[in-house]
Amino acid sequence: MLKSIKESPLHRIANARSMAFFGASNNIASMGTHLLMTALAGGFKGKIYPVHRKETRVQNLTAYGHVGDLPEIPDLAVIVLPTSVVNQALEDCGKKGIRHAVVVSGGFKEVGDQGAQLERSFKKIASEYDMKILGPNCLGVANPHCNINTTFIPDEGAPGFVGLASQSGSFVTQIFEYLSGFGLGFSTAFSVGNEAVLDIVDCMEYLGACPHTKVIALYIEGIRRGRAFMEAARAIVPHKPIVAFYVGGSKAGKAAGFSHTGAMAGPDGIYDGMFRQTGIIRAGSVEEMFDFCWALGALPAPRGNRVVIQTHSGGPGAAAADACGRAGLKLSTLSEETLGKLAPFVPSTGSMGNPVDLTFSKNHGAFFSDIPDILLAEEDADVLLVYLLSPKRVVQRVLKGMGLADEAVGEQALKITQSNAEQFARRLKTQQKPIVGYTFHRSDAYIMKQAIARGLPVFQGAERAARAIAALVSYARVKQQRSI
Amino acid sequence: MLKSIKESPLHRIANARSMAFFGASNNIASMGTHLLMTALAGGFKGKIYPVHRKETRVQNLTAYGHVGDLPEIPDLAVIVLPTSVVNQALEDCGKKGIRHAVVVSGGFKEVGDQGAQLERSFKKIASEYDMKILGPNCLGVANPHCNINTTFIPDEGAPGFVGLASQSGSFVTQIFEYLSGFGLGFSTAFSVGNEAVLDIVDCMEYLGACPHTKVIALYIEGIRRGRAFMEAARAIVPHKPIVAFYVGGSKAGKAAGFSHTGAMAGPDGIYDGMFRQTGIIRAGSVEEMFDFCWALGALPAPRGNRVVIQTHSGGPGAAAADACGRAGLKLSTLSEETLGKLAPFVPSTGSMGNPVDLTFSKNHGAFFSDIPDILLAEEDADVLLVYLLSPKRVVQRVLKGMGLADEAVGEQALKITQSNAEQFARRLKTQQKPIVGYTFHRSDAYIMKQAIARGLPVFQGAERAARAIAALVSYARVKQQRSI
Repeated sequence: MLKSIKESPLHRIANARSMAFFGASNNIASMGTHLLMTALAGGFKGKIYPVHRKETRVQNLTAYGHVGDLPEIPDLAVIVLPTSVVNQALEDCGKKGIRHAVVVSGGFKEVGDQGAQLERSFKKIASEYDMKILGPNCLGVANPHCNINTTFIPDEGAPGFVGLASQSGSFVTQIFEYLSGFGLGFSTAFSVGNEAVLDIVDCMEYLGACPHTKVIALYIEGIRRGRAFMEAARAIVPHKPIVAFYVGGSKAGKAAGFSHTGAMAGPDGIYDGMFRQTGIIRAGSVEEMFDFCWALGALPAPRGNRVVIQTHSGGPGAAAADACGRAGLKLSTLSEETLGKLAPFVPSTGSMGNPVDLTFSKNHGAFFSDIPDILLAEEDADVLLVYLLSPKRVVQRVLKGMGLADEAVGEQALKITQSNAEQFARRLKTQQKPIVGYTFHRSDAYIMKQAIARGLPVFQGAERAARAIAALVSYARVKQQRSI
Repeated sequence: MLKSIKESPLHRIANARSMAFFGASNNIASMGTHLLMTALAGGFKGKIYPVHRKETRVQNLTAYGHVGDLPEIPDLAVIVLPTSVVNQALEDCGKKGIRHAVVVSGGFKEVGDQGAQLERSFKKIASEYDMKILGPNCLGVANPHCNINTTFIPDEGAPGFVGLASQSGSFVTQIFEYLSGFGLGFSTAFSVGNEAVLDIVDCMEYLGACPHTKVIALYIEGIRRGRAFMEAARAIVPHKPIVAFYVGGSKAGKAAGFSHTGAMAGPDGIYDGMFRQTGIIRAGSVEEMFDFCWALGALPAPRGNRVVIQTHSGGPGAAAADACGRAGLKLSTLSEETLGKLAPFVPSTGSMGNPVDLTFSKNHGAFFSDIPDILLAEEDADVLLVYLLSPKRVVQRVLKGMGLADEAVGEQALKITQSNAEQFARRLKTQQKPIVGYTFHRSDAYIMKQAIARGLPVFQGAERAARAIAALVSYARVKQQRSI
């Protein structure tokens, strides 16, 4: 395991202080132009040197006819040229003394024999000049902590704690908005493409040492260095959770992965075993991968798998109980002491089983304070799972019924949800037990948005919440085993 | 099978022309008041008669001290009273000649022995006066086609084609917003509660005959009349698909279901067999239930299970291919003819395998017209699955780059996405093959919103899309077998 990201061959890629940019122009229809515009929009602090044969200015930057003409040796070259001229540009960079590159251009190994031949030359040049390269056929890196982004779309939202190493650039660049919708963001995200030089193992090692990364996500179409992958994972897992989504396991996924990045996928069982042996948590979809990352990065480790469910609606409670059962979790048995404390809060139509179902409660505030406190104090509960509803119209109705003027209703409703979320989220900080929310509403509706902003993961639906809790439990077990 | 909804005991509940309302007042903290306000907000056209001992006006309606005083016999009584006085009110309704009721009050069988005793008296009264009743412990009915809504939250969006019979009121009332986010809505939704008189089978039969209902969704915690359920399902399925989500199958789900509505759940395998024998499609979550309903209600039946995937991003393409494989679908093998027609549209970095991956294409419009046409014409393809991306910032960037003023950018971007969605959706109408979209973006972002508004189902993620397609295929097979 790396002691510091400075030991990583990716360090000067993810933390470049200056870049040469090949393939950007003033033509908005070109991909290179888009990537340069993203880099500029991200607020990159260092120098960017566009290299262009004809233009003297590119996107308001001074352009250079040849990389040899640059006034300094930049940390990084970003290459978005037609396939046929990539290798020449790479060699020019080598001659200039540039030692790191992101090669976005495709048309190599993934398109067949001729491309494979080009990729062999590519690797020879890299080796000759000792160049550390991401790609070809990748989107490079997004490190919002350093305002670096060589991908297609500008980052949204704040930097986060999820480190991603991905064999698809889309799952870097097209996922920014998705994550920011949940208040999440990348610490650093790598798109590795064909992995001609640097691969997903190198990225994993970088992220293992990255201080901003609390949890590592891997999108895998096929691992090229199996042994190195396992060694790296084994070393990282006791310190930092790793979540993987592997698509090469079905026949259809395998073929698609090959034509995408030339990856050689293996049987699903082999990968499953590899993940289990190393303590990597396997996700079944991209969304699930980030669900797991959310729980693992935001919450403390549970002591066990006993869940107590808090709801005011029977159906969502029953669905959560069933989902927990299917995810291998247990439902807590509440003690006499807990039941005694709960009794004053639960109406006769409610239930003090587990799920604890308040039904229609007149003491709305207790749902976010007294009741979670009582349930978190229960000895037989390791995790609290809470159903959240955001009936905007009902809140408005109550406030209007209390005589509030229309214009004051919105403001007051916001205050109430903020205060509820505040009270609720305070438990996250003072309690050692994970608290997880679930809802059928959107993450930007009322209480969900407020709770998420305060660090509480709120999942879309009971099944996703239950599976995320199971991932938490699974990692806590792995960590316990490994640290003994 | 019913020939018409008029034969159903639920007809005058779901299509009531007048209501007596018990338990509403001018106190906004009472549940009855909320339900009356929902009924009013929904724009119910008929007369509503609040019954209240003390108040003479309730929510600006004339209130009556006793149901016997009402000037007419209303079609329906809605009862939201404390448990202890429910049976008396029911008897008063019977005496008045009211033959239909929704009893919202809980505290019956679901709370134990004493409640079970009350429920027996409840049933006796119902039988004595030949009353058709939904509940107790339910939320009644929402029929947006008739502006009837006895639940907690006003309906959102337009009436739709999904008929729901639910053993949880939450999955009626708390799901309005969720559905409307996808352009979906209920035709009629029933919350059945403890099923003392009418049950989920009655609702299913009503929905089977309901002309607005294209697909039936069932949320099940336990079926009380197994044989009747199977007979009804067998009769309906050849004409209308039924999707069920059953939560009683795990130990945890079973216990939760009992304390919710007193339902007796059975082993998962029994229910699974019952669903398979009758051709009901089983969903694994509430979200999946509505995903399946969306596909089944919006799309034509596929001839087989061969899917062609269209993408401009390799990772999402590979994830979809893998998801299709895991869902039991096949990937089409494209013919020489199709490949010949595709060639001019696919750049050298793209792939003409399946997924068809355009990568970075300069001819953006073709993605929504020529390419789907070519793929839909492929003999080996039964379903077209298309990845949709909504990179707002990239669209804006391109338009700005073309010299558009800032204020014109938004307008122009909307025009483009509208035109693309229009072109795309036209294929839905002229083609006999289902077209399904998937995305990692929100359903209200740019192209997704436009496509959804034009009737194209766009699912959140590749797995949900693949499973929805599998549900389509499965129903098409069932229908074929049953009609021979």
